[in-house]
Amino acid sequence: MRQPTRADKFSFGLWTVGWRGVDPFGEATRPALDPVEAVHRLAELGAYGITFHDNDLFPIDGSEDQRRAHVDRLAAALRDTGLVVPMVTTNLFTHPVFKEGGLTANDRGIRRYALRKVLRNVELAAELGARTFVLWGGREGSEYDSAKDVRAALDRYRESLNLLTQFVLDRGYEIRFALEPKPNEPRGDILLPTVGHALAFIASLEHEQLVGVNPEVGHEQMAGLNFTHGIAQALWHGKLFHIDLNGQRGIKYDQDLVFAHGDLMNAFSLVDLLEHGGPDGSPAYEGPRHFDYKPSRTENIDGVWQSAAANMRNYLLLTERARAFRADPEVQEALHTAGVTELRTPTLASGESYTELLADPAVADFDIDKASERGYGFVRLNQLALEHLTGAR
Amino acid sequence: MRQPTRADKFSFGLWTVGWRGVDPFGEATRPALDPVEAVHRLAELGAYGITFHDNDLFPIDGSEDQRRAHVDRLAAALRDTGLVVPMVTTNLFTHPVFKEGGLTANDRGIRRYALRKVLRNVELAAELGARTFVLWGGREGSEYDSAKDVRAALDRYRESLNLLTQFVLDRGYEIRFALEPKPNEPRGDILLPTVGHALAFIASLEHEQLVGVNPEVGHEQMAGLNFTHGIAQALWHGKLFHIDLNGQRGIKYDQDLVFAHGDLMNAFSLVDLLEHGGPDGSPAYEGPRHFDYKPSRTENIDGVWQSAAANMRNYLLLTERARAFRADPEVQEALHTAGVTELRTPTLASGESYTELLADPAVADFDIDKASERGYGFVRLNQLALEHLTGAR
Amino acid sequence: MRQPTRADKFSFGLWTVGWRGVDPFGEATRPALDPVEAVHRLAELGAYGITFHDNDLFPIDGSEDQRRAHVDRLAAALRDTGLVVPMVTTNLFTHPVFKEGGLTANDRGIRRYALRKVLRNVELAAELGARTFVLWGGREGSEYDSAKDVRAALDRYRESLNLLTQFVLDRGYEIRFALEPKPNEPRGDILLPTVGHALAFIASLEHEQLVGVNPEVGHEQMAGLNFTHGIAQALWHGKLFHIDLNGQRGIKYDQDLVFAHGDLMNAFSLVDLLEHGGPDGSPAYEGPRHFDYKPSRTENIDGVWQSAAANMRNYLLLTERARAFRADPEVQEALHTAGVTELRTPTLASGESYTELLADPAVADFDIDKASERGYGFVRLNQLALEHLTGAR
Amino acid sequence: MRQPTRADKFSFGLWTVGWRGVDPFGEATRPALDPVEAVHRLAELGAYGITFHDNDLFPIDGSEDQRRAHVDRLAAALRDTGLVVPMVTTNLFTHPVFKEGGLTANDRGIRRYALRKVLRNVELAAELGARTFVLWGGREGSEYDSAKDVRAALDRYRESLNLLTQFVLDRGYEIRFALEPKPNEPRGDILLPTVGHALAFIASLEHEQLVGVNPEVGHEQMAGLNFTHGIAQALWHGKLFHIDLNGQRGIKYDQDLVFAHGDLMNAFSLVDLLEHGGPDGSPAYEGPRHFDYKPSRTENIDGVWQSAAANMRNYLLLTERARAFRADPEVQEALHTAGVTELRTPTLASGESYTELLADPAVADFDIDKASERGYGFVRLNQLALEHLTGAR
Repeated sequence: MRQPTRADKFSFGLWTVGWRGVDPFGEATRPALDPVEAVHRLAELGAYGITFHDNDLFPIDGSEDQRRAHVDRLAAALRDTGLVVPMVTTNLFTHPVFKEGGLTANDRGIRRYALRKVLRNVELAAELGARTFVLWGGREGSEYDSAKDVRAALDRYRESLNLLTQFVLDRGYEIRFALEPKPNEPRGDILLPTVGHALAFIASLEHEQLVGVNPEVGHEQMAGLNFTHGIAQALWHGKLFHIDLNGQRGIKYDQDLVFAHGDLMNAFSLVDLLEHGGPDGSPAYEGPRHFDYKPSRTENIDGVWQSAAANMRNYLLLTERARAFRADPEVQEALHTAGVTELRTPTLASGESYTELLADPAVADFDIDKASERGYGFVRLNQLALEHLTGAR
Repeated sequence: MRQPTRADKFSFGLWTVGWRGVDPFGEATRPALDPVEAVHRLAELGAYGITFHDNDLFPIDGSEDQRRAHVDRLAAALRDTGLVVPMVTTNLFTHPVFKEGGLTANDRGIRRYALRKVLRNVELAAELGARTFVLWGGREGSEYDSAKDVRAALDRYRESLNLLTQFVLDRGYEIRFALEPKPNEPRGDILLPTVGHALAFIASLEHEQLVGVNPEVGHEQMAGLNFTHGIAQALWHGKLFHIDLNGQRGIKYDQDLVFAHGDLMNAFSLVDLLEHGGPDGSPAYEGPRHFDYKPSRTENIDGVWQSAAANMRNYLLLTERARAFRADPEVQEALHTAGVTELRTPTLASGESYTELLADPAVADFDIDKASERGYGFVRLNQLALEHLTGAR
Repeated sequence: MRQPTRADKFSFGLWTVGWRGVDPFGEATRPALDPVEAVHRLAELGAYGITFHDNDLFPIDGSEDQRRAHVDRLAAALRDTGLVVPMVTTNLFTHPVFKEGGLTANDRGIRRYALRKVLRNVELAAELGARTFVLWGGREGSEYDSAKDVRAALDRYRESLNLLTQFVLDRGYEIRFALEPKPNEPRGDILLPTVGHALAFIASLEHEQLVGVNPEVGHEQMAGLNFTHGIAQALWHGKLFHIDLNGQRGIKYDQDLVFAHGDLMNAFSLVDLLEHGGPDGSPAYEGPRHFDYKPSRTENIDGVWQSAAANMRNYLLLTERARAFRADPEVQEALHTAGVTELRTPTLASGESYTELLADPAVADFDIDKASERGYGFVRLNQLALEHLTGAR
Repeated sequence: MRQPTRADKFSFGLWTVGWRGVDPFGEATRPALDPVEAVHRLAELGAYGITFHDNDLFPIDGSEDQRRAHVDRLAAALRDTGLVVPMVTTNLFTHPVFKEGGLTANDRGIRRYALRKVLRNVELAAELGARTFVLWGGREGSEYDSAKDVRAALDRYRESLNLLTQFVLDRGYEIRFALEPKPNEPRGDILLPTVGHALAFIASLEHEQLVGVNPEVGHEQMAGLNFTHGIAQALWHGKLFHIDLNGQRGIKYDQDLVFAHGDLMNAFSLVDLLEHGGPDGSPAYEGPRHFDYKPSRTENIDGVWQSAAANMRNYLLLTERARAFRADPEVQEALHTAGVTELRTPTLASGESYTELLADPAVADFDIDKASERGYGFVRLNQLALEHLTGAR
């Protein structure tokens, strides 16, 4: 297996390797990690970029000077290592002031504060050359159905996005926004719970061309949804602006495991789609391969770096396996038998409309019993995928 | 509790009371129910309409004459009872020919046949005066990630919808389409798995004004999603064209219980939203209150009619409870304390933009520790809801 | 609705009203609550007892003198209020030393430390007059299948329980142990994930008569299981030693809502079972009605006490509704029609064995088609339950 | 990859390859398969045995002569091929008479009929040399909490098991019973929903040594439980009498996919446990490797046999991968670092009790902060497993 290089565009959140292990039932198990140290170690491991929430870097209530000092220190580390900051995001969830939401908090004062916090952070993102600004609305939601007017919340979220997109347009920033859906945790029900809900919302925005999604493997799987399907729909809408790779083992709390340490078959099809889903088998997605995971709480700092490396290694491994899968003539034949490629042919002939369709005797007299006999060979196709994935072919 | 009347707009699918009890592990437990009998009994119980799939009424492979005879017989029963047909839908899932899909089947011949089947059925819907045509794509999906090109499937689904909407426009039918999402079952993963995914897809259509959603309680709850939230988002997009009411007890197979026999608290907030979510507390939704449920397989025909009546009774009961909840001054006060109404106030002042916001000292110097102290009283608010729901206030 | 009294046996964990709101994505939203204050307020609200983990009261690394001072201070508050301590439990999950487990940690030194910690705490439980000692093994588990030898873990857990039961026997303590199952969170998979797994394990113990279960509403519902069914099986085995009441809205992270703020219908059937499931409609369970919930993070201290009161109020309300349900002659008739009571009659006649059964012509010639016609009226029965629950009858 | 042989002990239910594709929304997609044909084809593919429900072979209401003719025909096919019948089971779920249960039906007449049906089928199992008799109580359950007295149901189930075990003892049959748990589907909640609940129930039986479990991969995963953990606990209790191998993709309807076509990592750890979990790495389970799956409804008869072969191929592939995993010195080292083997050492020293433990200064003065620093390397260990599974090492 080859080592990761910067051309692979692997990026990590500072909050991932920096996670100290606090969970609902336990205290931190690891000391704080200096962001500068993180940058250097990730550079050595082959990453090309790091990402962060504002308060991964400086305290929420620090002075301007403190903030500047922290940013400059990070910038120096980036210069030293050549790492980039492809994405920045804002923390609207840790401080108690956000306990009831940020941009859609019921409290208007808090909404105004949150909006300013994001605006300030977009300025920082521009300064650091980030092209994507992620918004994860983890606290935008409710536990009780009467506690939140969902339509008002959507109004406020739209108001915020319209303002933010106008801001980057006016400032001439080359930044696009990416919304990150999640169904629940830490709120009982979160606004825009899935990729679908976020895509629908985006279509209602003033500058919708500047807003896309940042889907996370585990978040969709927490709703029992097929992550590869969600990514395919996001690509279809032209809205896959960023991606959060990690692992999740079924419908439960947010696990944030290493990429591919959850549903392995689905990780395989995801990499296959991202890397070979474009026209002629080119990549369907060109952005950062961003890992948003947590090194398990049982690990010490060695385990942190082992887990960081494992994310990249698994992505490269699955890319290789997917390439061999695609190149296998038996797979090509099975895809043909299954009709997978046939679905790309329009249902109507060129120039045909319902009039011709209704008049077509081949349709009117279609032998449904005969057509029912077709065997699609899907199990065999999946078995071929499994055998490539396991290196058995 | 008052009896249901036609003004309540309760409707039932013929396939609901007509369900014979076949499940994956068991044979039918009830004899076939004559649709004419169903119409008469539902009329007596207080329903105002019935709905159906084409093949609830006539066999998929019957002659034109047979088809006509069945339709005429139904029409006579409708005339006799005064019942209407507010919605019609097409069965693209029972016959083996659809085992791999209908409008997005990998097999192009099957897609053409399916499209024709829908067109023919839209004609029938228009003839019977239906205003809504539902499309449930239960077979549009896959079990295996390599077996379906999701983007091609979305292309084909869009192609179909564009054709269908053009068809009703050209014919001058007053019919709108409503897509019914479902995450899985009978396919491992179904295309457009949630309300969100369907809304996003609709925004990409040529005549998107003619296409909305038909959410079903249990389908969203099978993905662990909050149904009331989904309906709120659909309303916000102006896309709640129809609704399927029933009950589901958590993430498992599709149960299709009587409305409110699943998550009772969520059913309460749903009815509250539908009946009082409009401006000034008017109904937020004006269409049919449609029940898409299955009388449990353990019931005989008496149980079928008891279950049909229970659906309507529960809707009326929850309407009454929700009305009292809204009218309670303590609830109004609790909503105010919780800031629920405050969320309707825009975050920005009239005419304000980011410049003013960034310059506002009340925002720059916002005391987040002070603001954190606010108690929202959400538990008390939910307790008030529970006490109204249980008739304890 | 009457006010709760001590005869109702309502108890609360100190960690419930004392929860400060730390969650995986947020800091504390409430100041620390003095246990003495908690005791006084809960007494005023009508509780009869409080429970605690050792480290709810004193720090894990405090001196003996500190520990004694904290215990004495609590004991004084108990004397002042008349509250009792029916249950005590040990914290084997918060400190980082337990990150990989307590009694089944892979590290033997940690296991020995954990076992000593429990022994010390059992002494304290005895001193305070507690009759039940709960063990929740929240850290006993793994995220990765190769990381834990489950059979070895069961060996170690059995070793611990055998030691603990011998300890109370030798010391003459009137204490029984209750294991609290949970499927996941904070570990990916927890040992003894459901009531069933715990009951099976208990049957393998040396002094199994001293060990039962402490099921929690939300924990079973996190596995999609019917809590009332789980409690019924625990009662059937004579093993319902204690119970944790709270609310959960489906399969997701552990919500710890107020009792009945989750699945309301299931809460109704639970209370009905506990209060009327004994012979002749007497209570089937005599122990504390213990609330293990978390006041939502959005609440201030007023909301904390409102939520505490809501737990008790809901229990009393459901008791009243269940009593009326049982007393309704129509319900009795429906239970009869449904055959619910018929199931209590043995399948075999007195003295009958398989020989007589095989020879019985009524069985050999049983008309299965005829028997299939029976309608059980389950939907009607459930509707009667719903109408009693909602105060509509 | 080597071909399967009879020494591999692969067996299939006649109902698996014979499944015609009826599902809740669709009709059969394949013609009936002659059991004799199934026996011959499975023999060719390398299976060693077949299993069946009585009514896979002969109709529920057929005459004695018909029954005999069907059995003789099967017996001849077995003789011709050398296949064995290691397990037999009874269908208590397809016919409408069982709509409300079999051995725990509320209707006593039905219970008596069901018990006789099982007795008759145990005789047949003995005649055919089966050593295991499986009971899957798919209809033993309820949709509504008031509709079933769970404790009475457990009484009746115990009554049945006590009778059945006495029957085989009296007759001298070498048959043991294996209960198959499932959480739901086709009933809303099924009695004995998980391996744990079944194991607990078994411990209450008169001849409990004759009763064990038959866990099915998908059934436990439908409750979000770790199947390998469930099997480990069943082995620990000495109760893994039989096993049903298949695939499931998360918490949803029962998918019955090919083995390993669901959660691949968990399938790997399962095979590792079964094949190498005994003392000294010998198999922990000696019984049939039984596949209880459904060839997808989209497949024709070719796909049926491809799917049957895929089950066996995957089992052999995972066995090979697991063997290499175990043999890798780096894995051995990682298991040691992780303390996995350390857990096999008792917590107490030989002869030690709580007195010595409490007096041990190494425990009293245990440095918990120091012990917290240990890194377990679980992520690395899991990565090694993944790399072996994917053939990357």
